[in-house]
Amino acid sequence: MNIVLLDPRQTESEIWSITSARQLEHLHTHLDVKAGDTLKVGIKNGKRYLTKIVEISETAICVKPIQEESVPAKLPVTLIVAMPRPKVLRRLIMDSVTLGVEKIILLHSYRVDKSYWQTPFLQQLDQYVTLGLEQAGDTIAPQIEIYKRFKPFVEDVLPTMISDNKPAFVAHPYAEKVMPFAIDHACTLLIGPEGGYIPYEIDLLRKNGCQAVSLGSRIIRTETVIPYVLGRLFSVSTT
Amino acid sequence: MNIVLLDPRQTESEIWSITSARQLEHLHTHLDVKAGDTLKVGIKNGKRYLTKIVEISETAICVKPIQEESVPAKLPVTLIVAMPRPKVLRRLIMDSVTLGVEKIILLHSYRVDKSYWQTPFLQQLDQYVTLGLEQAGDTIAPQIEIYKRFKPFVEDVLPTMISDNKPAFVAHPYAEKVMPFAIDHACTLLIGPEGGYIPYEIDLLRKNGCQAVSLGSRIIRTETVIPYVLGRLFSVSTT
Repeated sequence: MNIVLLDPRQTESEIWSITSARQLEHLHTHLDVKAGDTLKVGIKNGKRYLTKIVEISETAICVKPIQEESVPAKLPVTLIVAMPRPKVLRRLIMDSVTLGVEKIILLHSYRVDKSYWQTPFLQQLDQYVTLGLEQAGDTIAPQIEIYKRFKPFVEDVLPTMISDNKPAFVAHPYAEKVMPFAIDHACTLLIGPEGGYIPYEIDLLRKNGCQAVSLGSRIIRTETVIPYVLGRLFSVSTT
Repeated sequence: MNIVLLDPRQTESEIWSITSARQLEHLHTHLDVKAGDTLKVGIKNGKRYLTKIVEISETAICVKPIQEESVPAKLPVTLIVAMPRPKVLRRLIMDSVTLGVEKIILLHSYRVDKSYWQTPFLQQLDQYVTLGLEQAGDTIAPQIEIYKRFKPFVEDVLPTMISDNKPAFVAHPYAEKVMPFAIDHACTLLIGPEGGYIPYEIDLLRKNGCQAVSLGSRIIRTETVIPYVLGRLFSVSTT
């Protein structure tokens, strides 16, 4: 946790109170905060501030904003990923948010086990987003959308996310073209399930404007390939 | 598991027997293998083959190599990482191996909790390496070295890993220079602990030939930053 993220309603008065058990526990055990210390605090979907701790009680840490700080820029990417195993979902969302993905779409696919859609984790996406933002020092939550039917999404929705300035790339081990790198424009990135998209799905994605591109001969897990490809694509954004 | 990795001693006869409970369980439950199926099999630190399953018993799956396959190239990088929390160590090793890191060094640092060095996971590194290789389809284990004293390593060992053709970069949020990308040469990459290397450590690394470079203003966890930076640095290697 590199900033404390508060709900706008917690920041309406002059003094802000941090009252979440999770946040208090972290601040006490990991940061051992004391009155007078400074603390980085963000307002969810709002600004970020350097604050000063004015009071600490058993149930709250009260802070006063002293200086506005800049919020890190997002990566201009829409990440479309086949719904992963529940244990992977949490990490995938947290990492994508931490790295600054603008929009995340969870998509069904032939090799996605239908039971994955039953996971209670889907009701906890907001928590993972908050953890990812607090890790990165960001305040702006990405959009997250869910599409449980592959074909209607690819035919009706995906084309609206593709343009000359925003091409779409699907990672596909058997593609001849390789994944681009150090791009200076936005893009839509599709990552398949374990085992990859099936040929029918790759064909449908191609028909609807996606370029299938390879990452070489190593087979990389979903949760590992996302940071790997984002680092490759957006290396210019952080120069 | 995208190949089955066998010990060279298991591949001395004409027919090879897969007998590890972990591998058998995976092949039966996830791949539902049958006699006659083909199976990708690698010899640890050796060659990789397409094989044919000739017999399946309760305790073994017997295969016969029918064709040699190429082993994916490694990334020309020595990854030096501050010893992470035990739960992170497993993923960090697996991901680094999957992505093709040539050499991994676990290093002590001021912000590394000394208790981390007591973890039993350190005795299981070989298992994580095997899992990473089986995921990637690779057969060649990276070197892994452990240095529990920061200063002697940085002053005596690190300089031997740095040359004009192999610069060393340490990720440091406050550096003015940014992390390079799409490099066409080898490098040594240093990743700090949670909270980063302390100023004294950064100074010592600089004095001994490391360039401190920034990744922008987002604060990224160790296990996420490694694939992110490897994708950024070695984007040319997979083109």
